[in-house]
Amino acid sequence: MSAAPEYFAEFPIIAFEGEETANELAYRYYDKNRVVLGKTMEEHLRFAVCMWHTFCWPGSDVFGGGTFDRPWMSHPGGTEAAALKRATALDFVRKLDLPFYCFHDVDVMEPAADVAQYQRNFGMAVDHLEQLQGETGRKLLWGTANLFSDPRYAAGAATSPDPEVYAWAALQVRSALDATHRLGGANYVLWGGREGYETLLNTNLSRELDNFGRFLNLVVEHKHKIGFTGTILIEPKPHEPTKHQYDFDTATVYGFLKRYGLENEVCVNIEANHATLSGHTFEHEIAMANALGIFGSIDANRGDHQNGWDTDQFPNSIEEVTLAMVEIIRAGGFTTGGFNFDAKVRRQSVDAEDLLHGHIGGVDVIAAGLLAAERIIEDGRIDAFRKERYAGWDGDLGRKVHAEGTSLADIADLAVAQNLAPRHRSGKQERLENLVNRLV
Amino acid sequence: MSAAPEYFAEFPIIAFEGEETANELAYRYYDKNRVVLGKTMEEHLRFAVCMWHTFCWPGSDVFGGGTFDRPWMSHPGGTEAAALKRATALDFVRKLDLPFYCFHDVDVMEPAADVAQYQRNFGMAVDHLEQLQGETGRKLLWGTANLFSDPRYAAGAATSPDPEVYAWAALQVRSALDATHRLGGANYVLWGGREGYETLLNTNLSRELDNFGRFLNLVVEHKHKIGFTGTILIEPKPHEPTKHQYDFDTATVYGFLKRYGLENEVCVNIEANHATLSGHTFEHEIAMANALGIFGSIDANRGDHQNGWDTDQFPNSIEEVTLAMVEIIRAGGFTTGGFNFDAKVRRQSVDAEDLLHGHIGGVDVIAAGLLAAERIIEDGRIDAFRKERYAGWDGDLGRKVHAEGTSLADIADLAVAQNLAPRHRSGKQERLENLVNRLV
Amino acid sequence: MSAAPEYFAEFPIIAFEGEETANELAYRYYDKNRVVLGKTMEEHLRFAVCMWHTFCWPGSDVFGGGTFDRPWMSHPGGTEAAALKRATALDFVRKLDLPFYCFHDVDVMEPAADVAQYQRNFGMAVDHLEQLQGETGRKLLWGTANLFSDPRYAAGAATSPDPEVYAWAALQVRSALDATHRLGGANYVLWGGREGYETLLNTNLSRELDNFGRFLNLVVEHKHKIGFTGTILIEPKPHEPTKHQYDFDTATVYGFLKRYGLENEVCVNIEANHATLSGHTFEHEIAMANALGIFGSIDANRGDHQNGWDTDQFPNSIEEVTLAMVEIIRAGGFTTGGFNFDAKVRRQSVDAEDLLHGHIGGVDVIAAGLLAAERIIEDGRIDAFRKERYAGWDGDLGRKVHAEGTSLADIADLAVAQNLAPRHRSGKQERLENLVNRLV
Amino acid sequence: MSAAPEYFAEFPIIAFEGEETANELAYRYYDKNRVVLGKTMEEHLRFAVCMWHTFCWPGSDVFGGGTFDRPWMSHPGGTEAAALKRATALDFVRKLDLPFYCFHDVDVMEPAADVAQYQRNFGMAVDHLEQLQGETGRKLLWGTANLFSDPRYAAGAATSPDPEVYAWAALQVRSALDATHRLGGANYVLWGGREGYETLLNTNLSRELDNFGRFLNLVVEHKHKIGFTGTILIEPKPHEPTKHQYDFDTATVYGFLKRYGLENEVCVNIEANHATLSGHTFEHEIAMANALGIFGSIDANRGDHQNGWDTDQFPNSIEEVTLAMVEIIRAGGFTTGGFNFDAKVRRQSVDAEDLLHGHIGGVDVIAAGLLAAERIIEDGRIDAFRKERYAGWDGDLGRKVHAEGTSLADIADLAVAQNLAPRHRSGKQERLENLVNRLV
Repeated sequence: MSAAPEYFAEFPIIAFEGEETANELAYRYYDKNRVVLGKTMEEHLRFAVCMWHTFCWPGSDVFGGGTFDRPWMSHPGGTEAAALKRATALDFVRKLDLPFYCFHDVDVMEPAADVAQYQRNFGMAVDHLEQLQGETGRKLLWGTANLFSDPRYAAGAATSPDPEVYAWAALQVRSALDATHRLGGANYVLWGGREGYETLLNTNLSRELDNFGRFLNLVVEHKHKIGFTGTILIEPKPHEPTKHQYDFDTATVYGFLKRYGLENEVCVNIEANHATLSGHTFEHEIAMANALGIFGSIDANRGDHQNGWDTDQFPNSIEEVTLAMVEIIRAGGFTTGGFNFDAKVRRQSVDAEDLLHGHIGGVDVIAAGLLAAERIIEDGRIDAFRKERYAGWDGDLGRKVHAEGTSLADIADLAVAQNLAPRHRSGKQERLENLVNRLV
Repeated sequence: MSAAPEYFAEFPIIAFEGEETANELAYRYYDKNRVVLGKTMEEHLRFAVCMWHTFCWPGSDVFGGGTFDRPWMSHPGGTEAAALKRATALDFVRKLDLPFYCFHDVDVMEPAADVAQYQRNFGMAVDHLEQLQGETGRKLLWGTANLFSDPRYAAGAATSPDPEVYAWAALQVRSALDATHRLGGANYVLWGGREGYETLLNTNLSRELDNFGRFLNLVVEHKHKIGFTGTILIEPKPHEPTKHQYDFDTATVYGFLKRYGLENEVCVNIEANHATLSGHTFEHEIAMANALGIFGSIDANRGDHQNGWDTDQFPNSIEEVTLAMVEIIRAGGFTTGGFNFDAKVRRQSVDAEDLLHGHIGGVDVIAAGLLAAERIIEDGRIDAFRKERYAGWDGDLGRKVHAEGTSLADIADLAVAQNLAPRHRSGKQERLENLVNRLV
Repeated sequence: MSAAPEYFAEFPIIAFEGEETANELAYRYYDKNRVVLGKTMEEHLRFAVCMWHTFCWPGSDVFGGGTFDRPWMSHPGGTEAAALKRATALDFVRKLDLPFYCFHDVDVMEPAADVAQYQRNFGMAVDHLEQLQGETGRKLLWGTANLFSDPRYAAGAATSPDPEVYAWAALQVRSALDATHRLGGANYVLWGGREGYETLLNTNLSRELDNFGRFLNLVVEHKHKIGFTGTILIEPKPHEPTKHQYDFDTATVYGFLKRYGLENEVCVNIEANHATLSGHTFEHEIAMANALGIFGSIDANRGDHQNGWDTDQFPNSIEEVTLAMVEIIRAGGFTTGGFNFDAKVRRQSVDAEDLLHGHIGGVDVIAAGLLAAERIIEDGRIDAFRKERYAGWDGDLGRKVHAEGTSLADIADLAVAQNLAPRHRSGKQERLENLVNRLV
Repeated sequence: MSAAPEYFAEFPIIAFEGEETANELAYRYYDKNRVVLGKTMEEHLRFAVCMWHTFCWPGSDVFGGGTFDRPWMSHPGGTEAAALKRATALDFVRKLDLPFYCFHDVDVMEPAADVAQYQRNFGMAVDHLEQLQGETGRKLLWGTANLFSDPRYAAGAATSPDPEVYAWAALQVRSALDATHRLGGANYVLWGGREGYETLLNTNLSRELDNFGRFLNLVVEHKHKIGFTGTILIEPKPHEPTKHQYDFDTATVYGFLKRYGLENEVCVNIEANHATLSGHTFEHEIAMANALGIFGSIDANRGDHQNGWDTDQFPNSIEEVTLAMVEIIRAGGFTTGGFNFDAKVRRQSVDAEDLLHGHIGGVDVIAAGLLAAERIIEDGRIDAFRKERYAGWDGDLGRKVHAEGTSLADIADLAVAQNLAPRHRSGKQERLENLVNRLV
């Protein structure tokens, strides 16, 4: 059944050639076997290619139709087209010499009109993916179910006012989670694209949150029942397509998980562009997830600071990625997670080659960020300053504050008795920023 | 000691005169004794005047000095000036015929250079306020401590890297909480103005959050120890003055409270302008607080949608306030909370009369919003539509989803067995918005 | 050829029934024959229904497919479908009892694969529209050409790097302008949806601006050549779909017109949602256009202050519209322009009835805004305060500043000689805002 | 009179030591004598230190008082303090080995209560600055007058409703322009900080714009009269402190200049943080100024993409500065302009050393950006791609479009005759971004 994928036939497997190479289709920083802070770069970064942007999106936007001319898009509804798409995708990952890919159920299957077709078509797709994984040596970073594109999900899936829609969502998630398990996926992701509201006037917030909490508990229970040992991930986003999404940001997701007793079962899949849309930096979201104990995985991309929607561009700022990498290393690095390129080439980037430029650039920016983070960690000055800044908390007063039995009055009385007059000290922000620039 | 307050001497007590009055210094909607949904407007709205914007802020901004010429500002450091300010403030609340006021410790006291002065000067202020409350019949909605203006708090108070600063904060909060208790305050508020960070490079997020959680636990413990029965409130804000504040929004505060075991002890004081700065509508924050069970009180003001800082303008949109009032009524209304005007007249509004225009306008906008919300509730069409929209969740399938023992597979199997094909139904957003407009 | 339009058959013609009507499908404020400030409401407001959102958009967004089930969408490529769409559209305008409609060339025609088809299919559409205008008594507020949906316009039309694309744009604009002229359109609009850039790295800004200026000059010249006496309008928007659009806002368009000698030939079509996306209020854009002498027409809708993309919702804030109406009246009202509803019902609003709710609500909000503006103008207090605020400029010093021959040194010397010490006076913002609320 | 400046006594003159130096108080990229693209780095970059942020701002913000303990701030009102500030400032510029400084009148003088004091105190300051320039070898990049801090300017200066305020502004600008001329300044800047409005309700936009246009014409006339050959610059900013500023962005300023006949007399001083506040990238504003022929000078700093106010941080992104430098080089580089650090160390950065870190980091980021821009220009691939992309405009069709006598119909007819069917081509954005990363 494997249709021979020819779309990237003219391109070689992308190799590491070092910083000075003149070849634009080579890695300059990503040397997969190079050991950085005790692991190879491949083990550290765990790169994945996503199916949706790279193989399903036709280059359309809200003001215009598709600009891409891909062979598998000419007859998008056909069995052959779906197979060609799958085969081309895994071939592309192989060409990039990256270990992983990611997919939604509907990305990889022939479209289905009802329950029976859904099960049959998705089943065929999973059989084929299993075969292709074997042939290409690629692995699944995570699977997911698309609970937002079909019109039935217009008002949400797990937060739909209609329980039949909820049941359809359960069917898709069960299928996608089972498939992820079978394909050896390292994680399973839920992105609540339409789990939010358009207007509070018709929304019962409390009921929707409870339905959503119930859903997530059912998913976790199912995971354990089938023996899936990967991580369940939620992907925060503040809005778009909805006016307001319940998984606004990492801190919001944490509160939700705590409320429904899931904080030890579910982690976050942080997307750079979603972070900035919610009013945070990318590195903030990672640092916060780490502080709250729910850091899981990364959707690598970038937004546009002047545009208020999800542009999903390929990462291209080594400076930004370096700060994120420092926080990832502080969080102990990935366990099951990795860097999935949830990024799309621009609508004008219509050539096959552009897909390579996008991914190669993204890989190298992140690899360069890892190398810079290694230098920052090994240099040690920033961490040393930070440690010294809090030194008082390791002293008598700091310990007393946290000692059992200490009261607010005890601390206030101590301030009076010692006539405390603490002076503010320099936070050295400019110096630390210069150190980062020196090491990037 | 009560200096005779003359600043508002020329103005009468502001009275309700009805919608058609030509008098600009009268209430058109706020009829304090009118019964709305079972309570008087005064009981519903529980208006408070704040000390800081109205009596302490000199009309300065980051690009220019104070424009206001108030008698108590000419010698801001003096004992007399502080007394005059207090007396004038309570006289102003009396003139507005509103029941409450709110203050920070430093708003009401002569400035202090050390611990001893702080205790003495604040003590004098509280004595005087107690006397003035008796003389004017005004009450305290809430007290708080200013943990952000003094340079020692440049890097935070409860999240300072320096435990001596933390101890100073404990001293101030203990003092302000004790004073609030003594003055019969209905709530005590913590606004973590500098509880955040400027750069992650010098910040230990995890340690700061733990210190903050500890602080809040100490405050709650102290509250119970002294027998204060008011509500402890946290006021969310996403940033400004810090680059990022830990109390970003209601959902974030909820996660924080859950993490440190305080979700049944602490509620939120929601500010309209902080809501919009964090990417939410004002009514969203109220609805979310209600869904999470932590709705407490309101800081009434408005922001400017084109300006990305806290403009703290007086509310002037009946439309916006109506939507917020609907959510407040859904939340059961205030218990200890109320509407505090955390709002300031514009820097160019330099006349004493402008303070009256600002407050009278704000009071009337909120009163009109309450009347509109009453009409919406009594009309019932919006709530009826909303209820019907979720009707499926009261049926067999909805109950089965939530029944003990139901698994994800059970629901998925049911979708298969019944070959479910749910259709999306109209959410009727435009109709509902028209109904609101009809009833405002 | 006129297919009998049945889609809105069950609905009556929408009539004015007054503020107290219980009928949700009636106008409460829009009484087309009521005289306001010397003109009927119909003459004042000149409402138009747009073809694209209401009859062409299928309810899709970037995360999901169409949700609408309209008869003319089932076979979108067919001759019959295009005819049915046109007939239904004009029937809908008739049902709403509004005078105008607006269209893009591609909205009203059967899709075309090449130049010949384009000319034939558009020609058939125009013939039919002419007939339908006669049958329904509806008129064309403006026509335009869609220079952004076809993939050929991915890099712009008048600013495309490819002159053949520019020639296609010339063909479409010539056709649409000729058609607008033939159909008696009152204006012709250019919306430069992709006249901008994605990245400066591949963009020659200067060359693109010159090509754009040339294009607009050619359009103006053609207008005069064919004897079209309507107004040429440019519609500002800051971005989306492009990263940056050249027609950022009214002030930018003015500079562009001045640069290419067109400031007396072209006006602006201001869209409320575009105004807010560019960092301005809706009323600012109108006031600025009036100050610069280029106010033309309005695209009536609203954005969402928390969402950074063009939501194109129906206007629903009487408060916002009132401020805009005050500025429109200050600008002398419309000449050829009008209020076009560039607004779409939400993706979940799938019923035919929802289209009525959207338009009826929008019409009434604007009508109510006009009535409020009338009260504000007739009350006169706001204008009187404003006039008095600048009174100094009608005095000696003000006249001297503007007198021929006065130099900077003259004015400075006068300040020295008179030892000027001007005091700031209250701008009375809170009072003025209260007055507006009193009159809305 | 020169008080001996001791504040930076412990620090040496900052020298270039190369990329590998371990010295944090040295330049790693800024080698002032290195020749880059035909000029030395010193000639290219023309760095200036500003007086206001670095020597006048006390470390205050809207939520708290000054944190800095500088000797000249302890008695801010005194003659001695002003002299010490001036001397320390020029010593600091000398220590940094940078050529220029910039000031507002009020930055350098003892505060004045009336016209006479203003003239005397500013005169003394200018005498002293002249002497200090001689002693230190430093030069003035530009002078300006502060028309926003004094309460009299609460409603604007050149756009004040009070002509006496306008006259005061004329006095200050005359004085500051004369002083700039005498001190050999290379430019004179007008920043219209309060030239905007708080509410349209009390604003006559048209009158204010005309007064502003008149003012600028008077300034230009005065410049010529006194023989000042430097450039007059306007600094765009969209808002803050006002709700809306007339000089919103470069395109708006251009339209204003065209309207009042000044487009050949006045250029723009572009601030990075103002660019991003107005919804543009920094490099966009430079490219736009270049396309419009009004590029003048740069206020170097950066904003915070998550914070909606002017943070005025030191530049620290080589990536961002590189893109800006490419546009500056495309604009032909500076003539009279330069890079003024309109940047302030953070409020917590209280040490003298922090001022050095801030400036050294900023200088080196910009120097590194210049070196990267040189590599990009010399590499040539980006410019070559860009040139090729527009090649069609140098061909027959392109020339025909711009030929005299060509009409819209001619071009449309040509599209018909040739049955044009242009295909979109790749814009290669990802490839170009990778090339930039390769060369940074």
